[in-house]
Amino acid sequence: MRIAVLGTGVAGRTVAGRLAELGHDVRHGTRDPAATRGREDWSDVPGTTLATFADAVADADLVVNASNGMASLEVLATVAEQLAGKVLLDLANPLDFSQGFPPSLSVSNTDSLAEQIQRAHPDVRVVKALNTMNAGLMVHPETLADADHTVFVCGDDEGAKATVTALLHELGHTDVLDLGGLDGARGTEMVLPLWVRLMQQLGTVHFQLKVVR
Amino acid sequence: MRIAVLGTGVAGRTVAGRLAELGHDVRHGTRDPAATRGREDWSDVPGTTLATFADAVADADLVVNASNGMASLEVLATVAEQLAGKVLLDLANPLDFSQGFPPSLSVSNTDSLAEQIQRAHPDVRVVKALNTMNAGLMVHPETLADADHTVFVCGDDEGAKATVTALLHELGHTDVLDLGGLDGARGTEMVLPLWVRLMQQLGTVHFQLKVVR
Repeated sequence: MRIAVLGTGVAGRTVAGRLAELGHDVRHGTRDPAATRGREDWSDVPGTTLATFADAVADADLVVNASNGMASLEVLATVAEQLAGKVLLDLANPLDFSQGFPPSLSVSNTDSLAEQIQRAHPDVRVVKALNTMNAGLMVHPETLADADHTVFVCGDDEGAKATVTALLHELGHTDVLDLGGLDGARGTEMVLPLWVRLMQQLGTVHFQLKVVR
Repeated sequence: MRIAVLGTGVAGRTVAGRLAELGHDVRHGTRDPAATRGREDWSDVPGTTLATFADAVADADLVVNASNGMASLEVLATVAEQLAGKVLLDLANPLDFSQGFPPSLSVSNTDSLAEQIQRAHPDVRVVKALNTMNAGLMVHPETLADADHTVFVCGDDEGAKATVTALLHELGHTDVLDLGGLDGARGTEMVLPLWVRLMQQLGTVHFQLKVVR
């Protein structure tokens, strides 16, 4: 597939790199490719092409929102035209660090970032997934308990959800749990305060939730 | 132990009954024992004594808040004097059904019900636990996957947390995960929207979260 990954943070780089390894044609979107390349800590993610957000999205079959959750609406607004009709896998979380650590959520309880994105882009097929785990486990779930843990998926478009579910299986996820419509993202985004606390208490990001049933 | 269980809903009845079976001296607190007994669906929980909130709490070593989360602050205010200095195991959730189903949380993100209770009763040793699972699994965790799932515990008083942790082990829980201070309750209470959604999607309440690590 032609995949655009938006965001050059840890999640974006990890996901872009792994999708390229798996043989996908990956364009890695950033606000200003020259500025990203100029950063001291930047080296291109092998197998991917660094591009502007708009160029990355233009020809994509699937777009991954791995931008900072607090900036996602702004980032996506800049590519509204190119996004139209596409599947958007949203793995961002609306973590607000403005009051320090731990973060709170900038939207929660009766709304979610995923639903905000969907309302801003009614013609985009938004699917929420992967936001409840560390980037390493998103793309290499088998490195923990032989992938015996759960990834949640929700969205209002069944076809888009099927596309994302297939991609999750391709990444090695074995327990893809369908939470139904996109408002299920309220539940998965609200897991983040527990996730952050678990990271602190366990002293690692290498853990995951499993729905035992 | 002498245990007071406040609340005669499903969680209160289930927990009171099991603790009595395990040999504890259980007083089951309700606002008005005569009115509770007069209810068509009420039959006393075997092994427990139905009492007013105040009488239940008066001689207790440990108090379980199993009252409706939206009423907990009001209920606990009526027994403030009797509660002083005691361990309070809070298993309630601030589920607000005023806008219908699914519920939202009446407090979340930057605060929690457990912290509200602690602030209202600074001399009570509040511990949050058990609120992330169905009542049946609270007291019979072995009925699902040989109890291979996680119960969270948090609180600001280490001694109180140790008391509750011992009780959780007595109930059969094998993975008691210490989340640190009572503000960890933000994380566990915010799991409820996901829990409610899982209940809808799985068509059962017989499931649980496990932190795989």
